[in-house]
Amino acid sequence: MNLAQTTALMLADIRERKPRVHCITNDAAQAFTADTLLALGAEPSLSLAKSEVADFVGSSDALLINLGTLDEKRLSAIPVAVAFAAQTGKPWVLDPVFVHRSPARLDYAAALLAERPAAVRCNQAECVALAGGGNGAAPGEVLAARFETVAAVTGAVDTVYGHDRQADIENGHVLMSRMTATGCACSAIVAACLAVGEDPFAACVAALVIWGVAGEVAGDMASAPGTFRPALLDALYGLNAEAIDKHAKAALKETAS
Amino acid sequence: MNLAQTTALMLADIRERKPRVHCITNDAAQAFTADTLLALGAEPSLSLAKSEVADFVGSSDALLINLGTLDEKRLSAIPVAVAFAAQTGKPWVLDPVFVHRSPARLDYAAALLAERPAAVRCNQAECVALAGGGNGAAPGEVLAARFETVAAVTGAVDTVYGHDRQADIENGHVLMSRMTATGCACSAIVAACLAVGEDPFAACVAALVIWGVAGEVAGDMASAPGTFRPALLDALYGLNAEAIDKHAKAALKETAS
Amino acid sequence: MNLAQTTALMLADIRERKPRVHCITNDAAQAFTADTLLALGAEPSLSLAKSEVADFVGSSDALLINLGTLDEKRLSAIPVAVAFAAQTGKPWVLDPVFVHRSPARLDYAAALLAERPAAVRCNQAECVALAGGGNGAAPGEVLAARFETVAAVTGAVDTVYGHDRQADIENGHVLMSRMTATGCACSAIVAACLAVGEDPFAACVAALVIWGVAGEVAGDMASAPGTFRPALLDALYGLNAEAIDKHAKAALKETAS
Repeated sequence: MNLAQTTALMLADIRERKPRVHCITNDAAQAFTADTLLALGAEPSLSLAKSEVADFVGSSDALLINLGTLDEKRLSAIPVAVAFAAQTGKPWVLDPVFVHRSPARLDYAAALLAERPAAVRCNQAECVALAGGGNGAAPGEVLAARFETVAAVTGAVDTVYGHDRQADIENGHVLMSRMTATGCACSAIVAACLAVGEDPFAACVAALVIWGVAGEVAGDMASAPGTFRPALLDALYGLNAEAIDKHAKAALKETAS
Repeated sequence: MNLAQTTALMLADIRERKPRVHCITNDAAQAFTADTLLALGAEPSLSLAKSEVADFVGSSDALLINLGTLDEKRLSAIPVAVAFAAQTGKPWVLDPVFVHRSPARLDYAAALLAERPAAVRCNQAECVALAGGGNGAAPGEVLAARFETVAAVTGAVDTVYGHDRQADIENGHVLMSRMTATGCACSAIVAACLAVGEDPFAACVAALVIWGVAGEVAGDMASAPGTFRPALLDALYGLNAEAIDKHAKAALKETAS
Repeated sequence: MNLAQTTALMLADIRERKPRVHCITNDAAQAFTADTLLALGAEPSLSLAKSEVADFVGSSDALLINLGTLDEKRLSAIPVAVAFAAQTGKPWVLDPVFVHRSPARLDYAAALLAERPAAVRCNQAECVALAGGGNGAAPGEVLAARFETVAAVTGAVDTVYGHDRQADIENGHVLMSRMTATGCACSAIVAACLAVGEDPFAACVAALVIWGVAGEVAGDMASAPGTFRPALLDALYGLNAEAIDKHAKAALKETAS
């Protein structure tokens, strides 16, 4: 079974099981993240209150931690959410937004990585900041190995770095970088895929393919970022195995080791 | 005069009087709630600061309290807002988002209900959690009777439970449940209707008809949730007595008592 | 060179230089403000954390301070951001949202004005509240003179008040007032223009022309506020010198002095 087929199956699973995804994410991304999960077929919740977050994580199937707004309430809620996810065996994904712009945030993200997220979704600049100096290896490979996680590094070409596998995904649309919160929403899709899949590597690949193909379909409907955003949600809502099969450009890489 | 006609009159009143509605609502719903009120013809404000909220409530015509983000700043602002609304005779509506997912939030909502909101707008799961065990009566009826309020319970069919009347509203569109904040926005419309109407029961019926008919009109313009959201605001903005008369499916129920 | 031509040059500069604009803005405006800056060609950041804000301002080219949500975290972050902007010579713009609705907010805004923003962007009601009693002069003129800043006062006709110049801009579309955050987004465009221009007066004129012309172009694509919002971002994204030259209605005023 190729990566497009596993992606289509995972999408069908999400629509069948409607996983609950609890999202601790940044202010500007909250509404779009919730809409993305709803269009995908998952059920979002967004509570940030320390007194409630364990209940929400406990009744969810996966957790998203996005560092785009790192304020007191999130700093209080995140440790509770992460600890409760670990205790109850819920997978979680870290999105270390803008860690290359703030040393305080970089330190915080590094400490969270030690808490063993199933996956990290970031861009290249964030990945380089988190990986630190590598010995010639790609920063994503260093990041995945150092923290025993899966690193999904997005850009013109996305690469997923697993323990012993890597995959390139060449889907997406240039307008996704001219809108806020598309990366944040992608991380929420990773969480939804983690909720239904056993394998974090496959979940990351599926999420990037789903989001990238939705972007390409949306690109047939809109050519500027204002109308591209609703088109992207429409495309995600209407995504099916045929569209994935037609558009997916995902392949395992030959790795050096 | 039937319920469609009273709804059309209330919509005309809102556009004539442009009531100010102060909204303490959740992070993800703030922008869409404000846009909904503006498209309706009302004037929203959103301040959450304890130092300011009395001034905003004092210069508004109605108040919305939505519990979707229950953080420190809202926990500080809500008692001030509710007390000032009571003191100055401003009607307010409670939207107890997700009380069935968090015991802490449920307790908080129950305490607020004792402060006598003119109306509560919630879904069935939230209503059941708030009503507790009923003696065979519908949870919405229990909720309305116990707290001497009007309960507007939305779902596939919406029901408004008043002191001695009940009404069913069978408007709306399935895509409204695949987008975030449509329930929250509905509660803001309840607040706007409370601002211009004397009768909370009629205000709740009108709000549910207005939002449901707007959803049906939007369903003729869009078939997926991304483009449905702007279509919904367009439909609300363009709503008139003719469309309400044509689409409204609202009727008083025969009640047991 | 006329005002349309300087505006077109400033827009080209923004697209060439992609200035970073750090935005401390209100909850409901964050996502749309970021989308507006991205559609314009600038790079937004939104962090509100006191521990990070100096790093974000330090790596940005201009700063926006919007008072629409005046909560503890913003009250902590704003003085740090403003002080660091002053220290590193970054221009900043103040948007005193709703100061006429809250005495506490008015006092806070007046204190910030003493910190010398390069520009203030507000509506007429906010301007009157900030300017206090003038000696017959327009409130915008009083505001600009008293605080040695440039005041961009928007409404049916926008006026920019500088030290020794004033300009009227008669662009825009009526639907911009039936959507939330269009004024807030305009202030972010002022910040982007300040980032690339030496002259705050010219930057304010350019921002108002850019936003107003985008609104007029959007008005050819959409006739209700739901679809107008994405159309507005599309129009901004596609704006060019030809459209500016065709639509701009900006002229220096003959001033009394």
